[in-house]
Amino acid sequence: MTVDLHDFVATVEDYPEPGVSFRDISPLMGDGAAYKQAVDAIADFAKDLNVDLIAGPESRGFIVGSPLAYAMNIGFVPARKGGKLPREAVSASYTLEYGGINELEIHKDAIRPGQRVLIVDDLLATGGTINATREIIEKLGGVVAGVAFIIELESLQGREKIMKAGEVPFLALMEY
Amino acid sequence: MTVDLHDFVATVEDYPEPGVSFRDISPLMGDGAAYKQAVDAIADFAKDLNVDLIAGPESRGFIVGSPLAYAMNIGFVPARKGGKLPREAVSASYTLEYGGINELEIHKDAIRPGQRVLIVDDLLATGGTINATREIIEKLGGVVAGVAFIIELESLQGREKIMKAGEVPFLALMEY
Repeated sequence: MTVDLHDFVATVEDYPEPGVSFRDISPLMGDGAAYKQAVDAIADFAKDLNVDLIAGPESRGFIVGSPLAYAMNIGFVPARKGGKLPREAVSASYTLEYGGINELEIHKDAIRPGQRVLIVDDLLATGGTINATREIIEKLGGVVAGVAFIIELESLQGREKIMKAGEVPFLALMEY
Repeated sequence: MTVDLHDFVATVEDYPEPGVSFRDISPLMGDGAAYKQAVDAIADFAKDLNVDLIAGPESRGFIVGSPLAYAMNIGFVPARKGGKLPREAVSASYTLEYGGINELEIHKDAIRPGQRVLIVDDLLATGGTINATREIIEKLGGVVAGVAFIIELESLQGREKIMKAGEVPFLALMEY
């Protein structure tokens, strides 16, 4: 039995800015069946991509990526906000959707050259965090095996921005 | 075949302060077998605790708690740093290990009265984040079914601090 994942998305109007409809997947994560279904659907997409590692940007990417890594019996690599990792790290910066610049970092020893990494996040907006994560993975000699999201906000054209950095397999479980 | 989880802990001396040995579990998360073994050991501890939901504090608690929720086929509830949740939330504050005060928040609709919640995190230090998470769960009418960690720093007596707020089943996979 499958559920309709749309039923587990809370839409918050005028957040974080007037005119914006924020898509909140906390209800999906909070429901065992919906959460498992979403993770398993991404695992199914990933099964032929020869994935060695899952990477996800801090912090909602952790909630999507770490159960996926568990389900696929592979490791999880967090892309953390700048300044939080205790050991030598590689970083990349990106422009925030609502203004400002942020930095993401991955431990230098987390990815070996040639390893194939699937990048996941809860929601694809403008693609800034994903391209920064990709930049770090590629700096470390890794290969982006694909990208997967629970939600894609189509009008923001994040998918196009990702593909501009190089075509990769793409999955979004829901589009808004 | 099991691995020795201690082999997947990186110790960083004098971080974040001189004299402190920081225990970093990124190598454990980055290794499929070690990660699965750790999550499964917590799931085994939890199996008789009648757990309805897993809760974990932002953000390393997400990397322990969300695969555990997946493995147990139940939902995951993030306790987020203050000001990040889009909908009505309940909060509690705690003193940081290295100075300052932080706030954690959980969505009001994430836990129903009577639900049994297991709190997990990567590392138990002074117990501040765990007791704040517990405070929120109890404000929402939930019951703390237990607490589980990958690492416990015994000398900081976090376990005693947790038990002072009420005895609960306790698990730490490694002690330092």
